[in-house]
Amino acid sequence: MTNGRRAIGIDIGGTKVAGAIVGEDGTVHAELRRNTPDTSDANTMNDLLRDMVEHLCADEAGEGVCAIGVGAAGTVVWPVGRIRWAPNNSYRDWDVRGFLEGASGLPTVVDNDGNVAGLAEARLGETRYDDMLLLTVGTGVGAGIVLGGRIYRGPHGLGAEVGHMNVNPDGPQCGCGNYGCLEALASGTALTRMGRSAAAGDPSGLIATLAAESGGEVGGEHVTRAAMAGDVTAQTLFQRLGRALGIGIASLNAIFEVEAVVIGGGLVDTGELLLAPARRAAHEFAYAPTARPIPPVLPAAFRSDAGKIGAGLLALEES
Amino acid sequence: MTNGRRAIGIDIGGTKVAGAIVGEDGTVHAELRRNTPDTSDANTMNDLLRDMVEHLCADEAGEGVCAIGVGAAGTVVWPVGRIRWAPNNSYRDWDVRGFLEGASGLPTVVDNDGNVAGLAEARLGETRYDDMLLLTVGTGVGAGIVLGGRIYRGPHGLGAEVGHMNVNPDGPQCGCGNYGCLEALASGTALTRMGRSAAAGDPSGLIATLAAESGGEVGGEHVTRAAMAGDVTAQTLFQRLGRALGIGIASLNAIFEVEAVVIGGGLVDTGELLLAPARRAAHEFAYAPTARPIPPVLPAAFRSDAGKIGAGLLALEES
Repeated sequence: MTNGRRAIGIDIGGTKVAGAIVGEDGTVHAELRRNTPDTSDANTMNDLLRDMVEHLCADEAGEGVCAIGVGAAGTVVWPVGRIRWAPNNSYRDWDVRGFLEGASGLPTVVDNDGNVAGLAEARLGETRYDDMLLLTVGTGVGAGIVLGGRIYRGPHGLGAEVGHMNVNPDGPQCGCGNYGCLEALASGTALTRMGRSAAAGDPSGLIATLAAESGGEVGGEHVTRAAMAGDVTAQTLFQRLGRALGIGIASLNAIFEVEAVVIGGGLVDTGELLLAPARRAAHEFAYAPTARPIPPVLPAAFRSDAGKIGAGLLALEES
Repeated sequence: MTNGRRAIGIDIGGTKVAGAIVGEDGTVHAELRRNTPDTSDANTMNDLLRDMVEHLCADEAGEGVCAIGVGAAGTVVWPVGRIRWAPNNSYRDWDVRGFLEGASGLPTVVDNDGNVAGLAEARLGETRYDDMLLLTVGTGVGAGIVLGGRIYRGPHGLGAEVGHMNVNPDGPQCGCGNYGCLEALASGTALTRMGRSAAAGDPSGLIATLAAESGGEVGGEHVTRAAMAGDVTAQTLFQRLGRALGIGIASLNAIFEVEAVVIGGGLVDTGELLLAPARRAAHEFAYAPTARPIPPVLPAAFRSDAGKIGAGLLALEES
């Protein structure tokens, strides 16, 4: 029994590919998740997407799906649906829309992952916002900029790459090749880099111990678990991460006048570890705080699911 | 003999107040300039503006002016026309629109100075742009963000404060009170600060010598004259200034997809001293340069006159 229209929503990130059957009210009727292949070139990703779409369509919840929406990390030409380049994935000049329409026979829209997540939060989050920034903090830092109720993409979809604004020109190298991008300082990749450095400097510390117990290299999840267990080193790394994010938020708040800054992406699941220092820095660096409101910094209502839900919503809005 | 409609345009900056009679095609038919008083509170500024408007209306070119437009540094509530606060002027909660409409009987619009300068450049500059950033580099750094042919102000006029995006959280203090704003590193104020420091460190150097010859403290104009005369210290300061500006441009180019970045304000008259290092840094820090165009960095067609012309244009567009 199907109520309302449904679409497939797919969120392609640097670490995982999440797919879902999404209803008009944002309900997820079925879902599917794959790891992003180490070699995420166009051919490999085409095979992966075809397989995911077939599985989702075969699900009983997939009966009657009318469209596909994709949100993908990288520079997506809008509305063409071709991804030119991505900092944390190896696909280049990938015609996602053309491939999926041919493979599935369904109308397909392809947008930047931050944009679709912003759409989900602005339309269906806890508050409906006309002017809002969503920042997705995951492998990279993505953004959805909602101005006057509409996603700001730039004339060809190449705008809103907020993760690559510079927050310190002498900072660490980013996956994009530059130095000191917000993404280089305030992403899951940054947390992993800082965690590895901390573990190398203190091999008997909790971060190194947790990684050794799990039999692998230090990752962001070990830093998170150590911080949650009260490890001061790990908590300090989160303070660095959150502070960089908050400085970026303060800059964006100088540029845009928004009702709220909403944080999504995988790292929002670390909760106040990330959000508390981000809020502090967003206040510390707020421009003209006696004359301009400081928007609240809130966790995304859809947490790290905003991407796939927003991708489905966009497909329903555009088809 | 008057052809077409005319308005008074007034540009209120941290150093000067420029007024003009502006035609629909941007022609300046008469102009007037005052220094911004050291105490630039609302009462002092009201007296100054009334005097300027009376002088301009009394000019034969002022016959038939139908409206007043003001572009002012600070956070201007739109379309209310009240300025809440400004980093480099002492007016606070100043009802500019109410005062001028009462004093002149003419419909008045009041907007941020960067916004109106952006309007002039987008509408009447050498190229007509639908998507453009104007940065005014003067006492402070202002901006006009033109997206899809319209000025982006934020829902209440409190957006587009690009001068206060952070480019280095450990940087020098800004007039706004924060540390490391673009304005703190890439404005006339920054040039003066750096020039004074250089002169203090080298009292027999050209910067200090030029200032002593003019009988006053070191100002940005001494650094400019020294740089133009080939002084390496002064040229290095311009490279620092331009580099900071270019990093800011690269960040803005990640956030917005624009056709051009146009530089106005008083310092654009220093030409390539400022623009060449700004272009270099905008390229060095450009995000995804193989996938996204790098917009040209151009001097404003109206140079430092864009503010008063844009203020007049806005009055004609809105009245």
